[in-house]
Amino acid sequence: MQRTVFFISDSTGITAETIGNSILAQFEGVQFEKHRLPFIDDAHKAEAAALRIKTRYAQTGQRPIVVNTMASRDLCEIVAESGALMLDVFAPFIGPLEDELGAKRSGMVNRSHGLVDFDKYEARINATNYALSHDDGLDVDYAQADLILVGVSRSGKTPTCLYMALHYGVSAANYPLTDDDLDKLELPVRLRPYKDRLFGLTIDAQRLAQIREQRRANSRYATLEQCRWELAQADKLMRREGIPNLNTTHVSIEEIASKIFDRFGIERTMF
Amino acid sequence: MQRTVFFISDSTGITAETIGNSILAQFEGVQFEKHRLPFIDDAHKAEAAALRIKTRYAQTGQRPIVVNTMASRDLCEIVAESGALMLDVFAPFIGPLEDELGAKRSGMVNRSHGLVDFDKYEARINATNYALSHDDGLDVDYAQADLILVGVSRSGKTPTCLYMALHYGVSAANYPLTDDDLDKLELPVRLRPYKDRLFGLTIDAQRLAQIREQRRANSRYATLEQCRWELAQADKLMRREGIPNLNTTHVSIEEIASKIFDRFGIERTMF
Repeated sequence: MQRTVFFISDSTGITAETIGNSILAQFEGVQFEKHRLPFIDDAHKAEAAALRIKTRYAQTGQRPIVVNTMASRDLCEIVAESGALMLDVFAPFIGPLEDELGAKRSGMVNRSHGLVDFDKYEARINATNYALSHDDGLDVDYAQADLILVGVSRSGKTPTCLYMALHYGVSAANYPLTDDDLDKLELPVRLRPYKDRLFGLTIDAQRLAQIREQRRANSRYATLEQCRWELAQADKLMRREGIPNLNTTHVSIEEIASKIFDRFGIERTMF
Repeated sequence: MQRTVFFISDSTGITAETIGNSILAQFEGVQFEKHRLPFIDDAHKAEAAALRIKTRYAQTGQRPIVVNTMASRDLCEIVAESGALMLDVFAPFIGPLEDELGAKRSGMVNRSHGLVDFDKYEARINATNYALSHDDGLDVDYAQADLILVGVSRSGKTPTCLYMALHYGVSAANYPLTDDDLDKLELPVRLRPYKDRLFGLTIDAQRLAQIREQRRANSRYATLEQCRWELAQADKLMRREGIPNLNTTHVSIEEIASKIFDRFGIERTMF
């Protein structure tokens, strides 16, 4: 079974898409064809969206599903004329919150992604710059790091650092374990003062070899043997030094970040 | 007025936080103190969470608000014993979707962030590597770029490219306009074949000077005069070449990305 889903928003559509994906993932047997329609903020655009949804309805013979975060009742009604199943993301929560807070909603939707708080913007940009300039382990001072990820090459350190920076303003550095570290089973001297901020990423050898093969085909670097050796040594090193770590093979970047924050008791909320 | 909010999840808590922030932002007069409690997936953790919420209730004398994406009814009931206002993010949508799809939910929540699809993972990692290696405009081949952002230094190109890569698997390169380009009002020769993939970022001069001052205090680079000149020349160049562009001063990274995708008709959905 396949169904068409439209994420509709008067802003970026990120909230509609995030919750929509979470809900749809709970229906495992169904294939969803997903479309994002952001910035639907006037009647003209709403009519165009409705026409598109209606067209898809006619083409597939299946009623499309709309996950909606538009604030305006009028725009919602225009889109609803397409005949789609309308799921309004905010409606169920506004009433209980208005009662609880004794205040009316302001009608501004998606402000969290719409307007910019300069301080927060700076925090995420500064953290991103930090992650970019503390990414290779070379000649790096770790004093300002909130966290330092260690692991063998291609274990997922860089994207995780960038994600934590962009979304949480966390300054995460990244130290790739070298053959020398792995031979000696010792951390480099300049990491030692920051041992309580270290977190290790590991990965299954097979998967690592596959990723490295993509990167440098037919290299020694990508052989299963080399991957196995590096991972075994890294594991020994992390156990010896008591570095908490996580196998990232089946874990998304979002989940890696959440687990690291959880481990360090970091409760920062996202931007 | 200040209220405490807990985002509770049996997984990362990203969905709870995204929708929670969007809903709370609609109540402008209220200050919210926000906490994220991810990975609440057994009775022991749920009891600890409930105790924490109850403690905050007692300390503040105000009923806390819980935004919840836990799948288990039992765990929800444990947390509800704290006395908080419980907002269940999924409950309102499951019934209508079960009816529409003629299928029962599988009970797996947050799979969208929980499990990893290797192909998608590779797409986002490859795009991130692409953004990292096509970031400085030096000696770069743009043939594989989905998009190329142009603009003066510190106009927001790098974080936007990284965001689009990490979240949408879009390979975005980034070309910082040089004084030479701005003097001549000409694009470098190697960008010209890809003119239809160019997008410009601009920013208010005052804001740019402020950002640059943070970066390189008391430099000519950070003077308002230099910023004004660069931005005026960049504006002329983009108008002459017909490059679509966006002023990023008051716009979040999420919104910049959404607007760029919208302009190019890219409808890719996020990871």
